[in-house]
Amino acid sequence: MPCINVKTNAEINSDQEQTVKEQLGHAITCIPGKSESWLMITFEDQVPMYFKGKADQRMAFVEVKIYGSASAEDYDRLTGEITKILETNLSIAPSQIYVKYEEVSYWGWNGNNF
Amino acid sequence: MPCINVKTNAEINSDQEQTVKEQLGHAITCIPGKSESWLMITFEDQVPMYFKGKADQRMAFVEVKIYGSASAEDYDRLTGEITKILETNLSIAPSQIYVKYEEVSYWGWNGNNF
Amino acid sequence: MPCINVKTNAEINSDQEQTVKEQLGHAITCIPGKSESWLMITFEDQVPMYFKGKADQRMAFVEVKIYGSASAEDYDRLTGEITKILETNLSIAPSQIYVKYEEVSYWGWNGNNF
Repeated sequence: MPCINVKTNAEINSDQEQTVKEQLGHAITCIPGKSESWLMITFEDQVPMYFKGKADQRMAFVEVKIYGSASAEDYDRLTGEITKILETNLSIAPSQIYVKYEEVSYWGWNGNNF
Repeated sequence: MPCINVKTNAEINSDQEQTVKEQLGHAITCIPGKSESWLMITFEDQVPMYFKGKADQRMAFVEVKIYGSASAEDYDRLTGEITKILETNLSIAPSQIYVKYEEVSYWGWNGNNF
Repeated sequence: MPCINVKTNAEINSDQEQTVKEQLGHAITCIPGKSESWLMITFEDQVPMYFKGKADQRMAFVEVKIYGSASAEDYDRLTGEITKILETNLSIAPSQIYVKYEEVSYWGWNGNNF
């Protein structure tokens, strides 16, 4: 029951979206018990964004929402993976990428909460 | 002071939006003290989304943000209601719907925090 | 490591976006230790939104996400500033503006978590 939201001012084409989606599906296994088989991913591209007051570079804000919790080490590894994926596929510099985590206590699927 | 964000890869037409909005206004009363009179709803449709690595089905990610807290039973009932609303009006299978809850400690309205 | 997401049903033109961005960069200093030099801002305009069941007025849902925490007084001042900025520049009535806060424990930048 994880969800990853990728928000960027860059344009993401179909090929890039496919590759990023696949690689995020692998990366999520940094969190014990999580895998692509429960992962939802949403993309928002060409979003008006500013970092440090400027909009002249490609940037991304990634939100990782997971049911339950994990260790600081797990989250740190996942940040490294996600950053690498966006750098490699979308040419976004790591210094322009935020990855934010949310641990969720109540999460529903298929009409009931876990 | 609740807010419900509906994010889906499906297209939502005006009639569907109206009906979903009205029914969410009723559903939010599953949470004691909450009603449509303080509810904000936002819709994002035709969002590029993947679940379990696939994009071939209609799906939704719903975020319910409430000021304060409620019981696990209340959230569970609300998940059931929201899922039914999206299934009925947007033809999204319950197995393709996540409903995520966030309990908020600081929430502002009209220039001040509650 | 703060991030402010501005979501509104109003249209935001380039000039308004610039001004709001600059003023939010000042406002964030209401939170001790936060400044525009670490602030990311995202804008989503013309979003289908409802408040109290109605869509006939301009409205906004603002999410402030910060790494760490701050005092209730700080958040309250920031709500006042943000509300004023949206009222002045986007003609949104304070009674149609929600400002929601999230304190974040895990936040990555440049490939590692803080």
